[in-house]
Amino acid sequence: TRQPLACVADYRAYAEQTLSSNAFGYYSSGANAQLTLAENATAFTRFRIMPRMLVDVSGVDLRTTVLGQPVQFPILVAPTAMQCMAHPHGESATARAAASLGTGMVLSSWSTTSLEDVAAANGSGLRWFQLYVYKDRTIVRDLVRRAEAAGYTAIALTVDAPFLGRRLADVRNRFSLPPHLRLANFDATSTKASGVTGKADSGLAQYVAEQTGGSSLRSVMPMNQMAAQIDPTLSWNDVAWLKSITKLPIVVKGVLTAEDALRSVEAGAAAILVSNHGARQLDGVPATIEVLPEIVAAVKGRAEVYLDGGVTQGTDALKAIALGARAVFVGRPILWGLAYDGEFGVQAVLQILRDEFKMALALSGCVKVSDLHQSLIRTVASFYPAKL
Amino acid sequence: TRQPLACVADYRAYAEQTLSSNAFGYYSSGANAQLTLAENATAFTRFRIMPRMLVDVSGVDLRTTVLGQPVQFPILVAPTAMQCMAHPHGESATARAAASLGTGMVLSSWSTTSLEDVAAANGSGLRWFQLYVYKDRTIVRDLVRRAEAAGYTAIALTVDAPFLGRRLADVRNRFSLPPHLRLANFDATSTKASGVTGKADSGLAQYVAEQTGGSSLRSVMPMNQMAAQIDPTLSWNDVAWLKSITKLPIVVKGVLTAEDALRSVEAGAAAILVSNHGARQLDGVPATIEVLPEIVAAVKGRAEVYLDGGVTQGTDALKAIALGARAVFVGRPILWGLAYDGEFGVQAVLQILRDEFKMALALSGCVKVSDLHQSLIRTVASFYPAKL
Amino acid sequence: TRQPLACVADYRAYAEQTLSSNAFGYYSSGANAQLTLAENATAFTRFRIMPRMLVDVSGVDLRTTVLGQPVQFPILVAPTAMQCMAHPHGESATARAAASLGTGMVLSSWSTTSLEDVAAANGSGLRWFQLYVYKDRTIVRDLVRRAEAAGYTAIALTVDAPFLGRRLADVRNRFSLPPHLRLANFDATSTKASGVTGKADSGLAQYVAEQTGGSSLRSVMPMNQMAAQIDPTLSWNDVAWLKSITKLPIVVKGVLTAEDALRSVEAGAAAILVSNHGARQLDGVPATIEVLPEIVAAVKGRAEVYLDGGVTQGTDALKAIALGARAVFVGRPILWGLAYDGEFGVQAVLQILRDEFKMALALSGCVKVSDLHQSLIRTVASFYPAKL
Amino acid sequence: TRQPLACVADYRAYAEQTLSSNAFGYYSSGANAQLTLAENATAFTRFRIMPRMLVDVSGVDLRTTVLGQPVQFPILVAPTAMQCMAHPHGESATARAAASLGTGMVLSSWSTTSLEDVAAANGSGLRWFQLYVYKDRTIVRDLVRRAEAAGYTAIALTVDAPFLGRRLADVRNRFSLPPHLRLANFDATSTKASGVTGKADSGLAQYVAEQTGGSSLRSVMPMNQMAAQIDPTLSWNDVAWLKSITKLPIVVKGVLTAEDALRSVEAGAAAILVSNHGARQLDGVPATIEVLPEIVAAVKGRAEVYLDGGVTQGTDALKAIALGARAVFVGRPILWGLAYDGEFGVQAVLQILRDEFKMALALSGCVKVSDLHQSLIRTVASFYPAKL
Ligand SMILES: Cc1cc2nc3c(=O)[nH]c(=O)nc-3n(C[C@H](O)[C@H](O)[C@H](O)COP(=O)(O)O)c2cc1C
Ligand SMILES: Cc1cc2nc3c(=O)[nH]c(=O)nc-3n(C[C@H](O)[C@H](O)[C@H](O)COP(=O)(O)O)c2cc1C
Ligand SMILES: Cc1cc2nc3c(=O)[nH]c(=O)nc-3n(C[C@H](O)[C@H](O)[C@H](O)COP(=O)(O)O)c2cc1C
Ligand SMILES: Cc1cc2nc3c(=O)[nH]c(=O)nc-3n(C[C@H](O)[C@H](O)[C@H](O)COP(=O)(O)O)c2cc1C
Repeated sequence: TRQPLACVADYRAYAEQTLSSNAFGYYSSGANAQLTLAENATAFTRFRIMPRMLVDVSGVDLRTTVLGQPVQFPILVAPTAMQCMAHPHGESATARAAASLGTGMVLSSWSTTSLEDVAAANGSGLRWFQLYVYKDRTIVRDLVRRAEAAGYTAIALTVDAPFLGRRLADVRNRFSLPPHLRLANFDATSTKASGVTGKADSGLAQYVAEQTGGSSLRSVMPMNQMAAQIDPTLSWNDVAWLKSITKLPIVVKGVLTAEDALRSVEAGAAAILVSNHGARQLDGVPATIEVLPEIVAAVKGRAEVYLDGGVTQGTDALKAIALGARAVFVGRPILWGLAYDGEFGVQAVLQILRDEFKMALALSGCVKVSDLHQSLIRTVASFYPAKL
Repeated sequence: TRQPLACVADYRAYAEQTLSSNAFGYYSSGANAQLTLAENATAFTRFRIMPRMLVDVSGVDLRTTVLGQPVQFPILVAPTAMQCMAHPHGESATARAAASLGTGMVLSSWSTTSLEDVAAANGSGLRWFQLYVYKDRTIVRDLVRRAEAAGYTAIALTVDAPFLGRRLADVRNRFSLPPHLRLANFDATSTKASGVTGKADSGLAQYVAEQTGGSSLRSVMPMNQMAAQIDPTLSWNDVAWLKSITKLPIVVKGVLTAEDALRSVEAGAAAILVSNHGARQLDGVPATIEVLPEIVAAVKGRAEVYLDGGVTQGTDALKAIALGARAVFVGRPILWGLAYDGEFGVQAVLQILRDEFKMALALSGCVKVSDLHQSLIRTVASFYPAKL
Repeated sequence: TRQPLACVADYRAYAEQTLSSNAFGYYSSGANAQLTLAENATAFTRFRIMPRMLVDVSGVDLRTTVLGQPVQFPILVAPTAMQCMAHPHGESATARAAASLGTGMVLSSWSTTSLEDVAAANGSGLRWFQLYVYKDRTIVRDLVRRAEAAGYTAIALTVDAPFLGRRLADVRNRFSLPPHLRLANFDATSTKASGVTGKADSGLAQYVAEQTGGSSLRSVMPMNQMAAQIDPTLSWNDVAWLKSITKLPIVVKGVLTAEDALRSVEAGAAAILVSNHGARQLDGVPATIEVLPEIVAAVKGRAEVYLDGGVTQGTDALKAIALGARAVFVGRPILWGLAYDGEFGVQAVLQILRDEFKMALALSGCVKVSDLHQSLIRTVASFYPAKL
Repeated sequence: TRQPLACVADYRAYAEQTLSSNAFGYYSSGANAQLTLAENATAFTRFRIMPRMLVDVSGVDLRTTVLGQPVQFPILVAPTAMQCMAHPHGESATARAAASLGTGMVLSSWSTTSLEDVAAANGSGLRWFQLYVYKDRTIVRDLVRRAEAAGYTAIALTVDAPFLGRRLADVRNRFSLPPHLRLANFDATSTKASGVTGKADSGLAQYVAEQTGGSSLRSVMPMNQMAAQIDPTLSWNDVAWLKSITKLPIVVKGVLTAEDALRSVEAGAAAILVSNHGARQLDGVPATIEVLPEIVAAVKGRAEVYLDGGVTQGTDALKAIALGARAVFVGRPILWGLAYDGEFGVQAVLQILRDEFKMALALSGCVKVSDLHQSLIRTVASFYPAKL
């Protein structure tokens, strides 16, 4: 176990130096020219905090709830695929770290640890399951059932990836999952072992068996085949279908317009995660913080609104929450923490974010998360009127 | 034949390393301080795409028409002079690549391959002919007749070059066409061989004979003499004259204001190509994407509107088309493809642009080109109001 | 004694090369990603001066008053902690330099020279005392009494530091005060020697004695213990309390909003120092010059308004004063002067600022400080209307 | 005589490499942090040219008049002091080059060649004389008489320099005029030789005699003494006085506000030169192109309006003239030309500017200077409305 570093950027720098270029390229890249990737970070700097002084901030309390479930602070773990490339303990380390600090995590359906193993590591922690919808709906149904069984308490339905974005580092590296790793939720062994889908008619198990000639229980679906299985016909109707097969609340992940936020509400979503998939899908879309205010205004409280994308500091979280997000999620910072030192590294990263957020809350004159309000935030332009 | 590279910028980098500075300087430069050259690219980044989610994008269809002529996708080849400096097969390679992918090309009148040879290479492909108007109108008439005879189906009349812009790299390199190449459309041999102008009174043939002392059928007009022949008295009346000598539709290439777009419509243009000549003429003019919206608004559908200038990615094309262009054209990317590997390189570049455009279309929630609409695009400024 | 350098930036460069990284990191850093630190400087450049010509500027007069007390020019010394890291003579050198030029200084309560020694060095100079409010109010009361006794004529109450901001250089350097230095106002010796608090029940002396096991009169409270003593419950009520224990006028230091400026006025503050603590507390707050105009407009003359943060040139001072500040304060420039050559360096820095300010005043067509008016200043945006 | 270079920036680069740092520092520097120096150039790039096509531009004519006096093109030579540091022929070379191309020059009163010698070199060329007003009005009167006698046809009264700006390079270099050079108009020899002031009561001659102990006819006033002689009491009344002693038209040089432009008109100025003294006086004032439009609007044609500052390209001149300047002046570009090759270098620089301007005029669809109109220019912001 190493000494904690000073900030998330330090963890990223460490990861850049130590990970393979295959893994670091996959983790760090945004789509195409990476304009949105840069904007996800830069956009936060165009909003300024208007701190209030001489408020008694001795009793700062970071606790809040997401979908009614308590968390110790409103910074949660976004789903990122294939965490075992960063550290052998991968998603389990993340799950233990998140639970230990009392925050939530969303598990990617493309995890390199089975959702059941992650649940075990997460214990009584708060966990949600991220879902891609596959052409074969049986796969989806199986995954949902397994997630329910394993104590995941919400489904984050990713809606911005009918096709996977083009990340140039992966093209140049001919990215592939290292041979010792597997997309564990689609592994015949784990599928069977889950107890939910371990029957002959399991869509996924059967599909995997077909793909691999059925020869081995340790068979695994390669990532690009998995990607090709994502269903590009997915539409708002499928949200209704998803609701019909599970009682878990649904978080629509990947909304960038007020219009789609409203449709999510109409479709019965419990929450909306304003996200551009870490700038990995369509390059040229806005930074998430840019569209947050209008989405919050449109939703008018009928669903919870979260944000991810470019959050690397406590003040980023503060700005998003003041602009109406109930909580924020972090993707890459967790991977840099993992790369540094597994569970301990993730814990350290989350602690930094929590402590920075706490300091930012206090120094802006707030004592609880619900004190954060839009009036705390101004655009830079507001200070430079054409007429003084 | 080499492996395809990951993006257009990679092809440019390759060309910069492998072409002579004479050729790369000529191809890459913009006029004077190259401010507009930089802006042609940068301006795209100031527009953001507002993608819609959960649309069935399984059946994305990129086809459209230009002047009623079908293309497989709305990214065509802009006319660029002297392509044989980039690859021995020059314009023929470009013509084969464009035809193979089902898109159109515009041949520069300053090609290093005769328009007849390019037509042969292009086969049943879609080709237009770019025209400079020379002091001696007989030259123009001859070129138009030859283009008609060779199956070019429109004339792109370049209106932004009464004089050639000053490109500093060419001044420093004392740019000249390598001795083994010729402006093939003005070569006495090809002129004669064309069957259209091979008579004693052919303006061009006669001019060339005069310039070269009439000594050789292989005589060729040097580029700076050719440039000096461009007629700076050209005016809107000449568009009427051009219409009087050909039935081919006329594309006015080089419009940057709503006023000139309207005059083009009045003069009977079938289409307007919003272009600043790849920033090679007057430095300090707007990026083409900046003026597109107001030109589209002024034209009100009375002519097709296209754009070129700085398109190097699928999202650039998407933004221009959403802002009202029917199609976009690319100039330099084709030259970088040629420099990489001739026909294969041009094909690879066009495929990248096509595939990026397809991905962008799908990820923004559109399934056909006509789904692209101005509401998909926002300026960055719109996210930073003085009052939140 | 060395030759003076050309500008404040030169002094900073010198300090960067000669100070230990422990000291330079502490002095130069802003909080976290240092966005506000950069903005404190950059924001000045977004305001332009509109100079008037052909005004008789032979008799430029820089004198003004602060809280009714005369200064030779309106650039004063902000309180910065631990100046003896920059030069052995530390705060005494600063005090002598400020007095010699007829400007004022604010002494940090975390000085490495006792407030009594600084007063002696400052002589008949203008000096104010900066106060942090500690959990143990006896400490505060003692400090105020000693300050009164030593001829400090105002209390600058720092309100932006209920907790100390996180400066990454200090985290990385594990910053500590060098062992030969002490926070001299909390040193048992000086406490006793002050004659005010040298009794058994002195809060501070007792606290120090406890912390250090009471073994030595030379005992000293380490900085992080000192920081931990700052009272995060501090609120507007405490301003009333402070007024109840002293007749000295109170300057509320650290206000960034019009709302808090108004509350300061209501609480009876004589002046407001618009400050973000040199960008060392909450990163992401506005540059001070950005919020100055609206604070001035809100206060409507009911209190004096000052500014600190990023002032490194005469024109910075001119802009702030034209936008309504009565005077400006400089923090780091003084430290760079100290590092260069103690008292002489501070004097040189103050002279540069004074002379630059004088030149700026004259060249903008003003002869006295009160000629500076908001009409002298324009935002850059005002020159680029959408419609010319 | 060397080959001409490609653009003004090339001449600057040459000068930077070949001049002493004493001379290059003096020539190139702006005041203090040089913000305005950078803006003088950058501001031009924020204005875009809207070119019109299909105008007959065969007969482009660059001629215009300034104060009724014809010039071949509207780019004139601004007064810059001490040109003999750049080339032994200094101001005489400049005078010959300007005359040979049919444009005008303004001679600095701080020339290193006497105004009579410059007049001889300039022959029938157009020349104006730049004036600083000295405490001793006899000096001023003498200079004006000598200028009249030597065929200077206007007086450019510099109003932005009651004190000389602080240029850090000069401070660091301890700038001084090389010993073999002299401020020739204040040299006792030339003063006497002029025939105008060669009498016992000549203010200047007497002053110089006093300063130098009267020992030598070759005595010369050092530059800093000269600067100290500039009268900071100068006011609008002195313009009336100046008009009372000469019939030459007066150009007020150094105006940056509409208010001062109006006062100049009221004071009887024939023209206003919008200038910030090449950013050498008050750092932080606007770029000249930024204030030009409002000055032109205020003056309403009652005086001619010119601009200098940052003009290094034909399009800069075009933008300024389209925004209402009758002509532009260039300062440093002339010095770079001198440094390259004396008269030939100045000629080459002026030719580049003239040819670039001609090209810009034609490519924007204009044939004469008076075709340039404000509608040709747009701000960048105009292309990015919050609502498309
Ligand atoms: C390496 C990587 C893998 C990701 N995998 C998934 C995934 O499997 N499912 C998903 O919905 N989002 C995925 N995302 C997107 C994240 O959930 C999240 O939206 C994004 O990372 C937030 O931006 P940040 O990385 O700047 O915090 C992934 C992101 C990264 C960086
Ligand atoms: C090397 C080069 C040569 C060109 N030659 C011609 C030409 O002969 N005729 C013409 O109308 N445009 C010509 N153009 C302009 C292109 O048609 C087109 O407007 C421009 O290249 C589009 O910008 P892009 O290069 O950024 O795609 C040329 C451009 C380049 C770069
Ligand atoms: C090294 C350092 C120590 C400081 N210490 C104190 C302090 O003890 N009390 C206080 O109120 N402000 C303190 N400040 C803030 C300054 O009073 C002032 O607000 C700030 O330095 C102004 O910004 P400038 O450094 O850009 O001039 C400190 C600033 C610095 C840079
Ligand atoms: C080296 C130098 C010396 C100058 N000397 C004078 C001068 O003696 N009198 C004057 O009125 N302006 C003087 N100026 C200002 C110029 O007349 C002019 O305003 C300025 O150079 C225009 O900016 P530019 O250099 O960017 O073209 C000087 C400028 C420079 C660069």
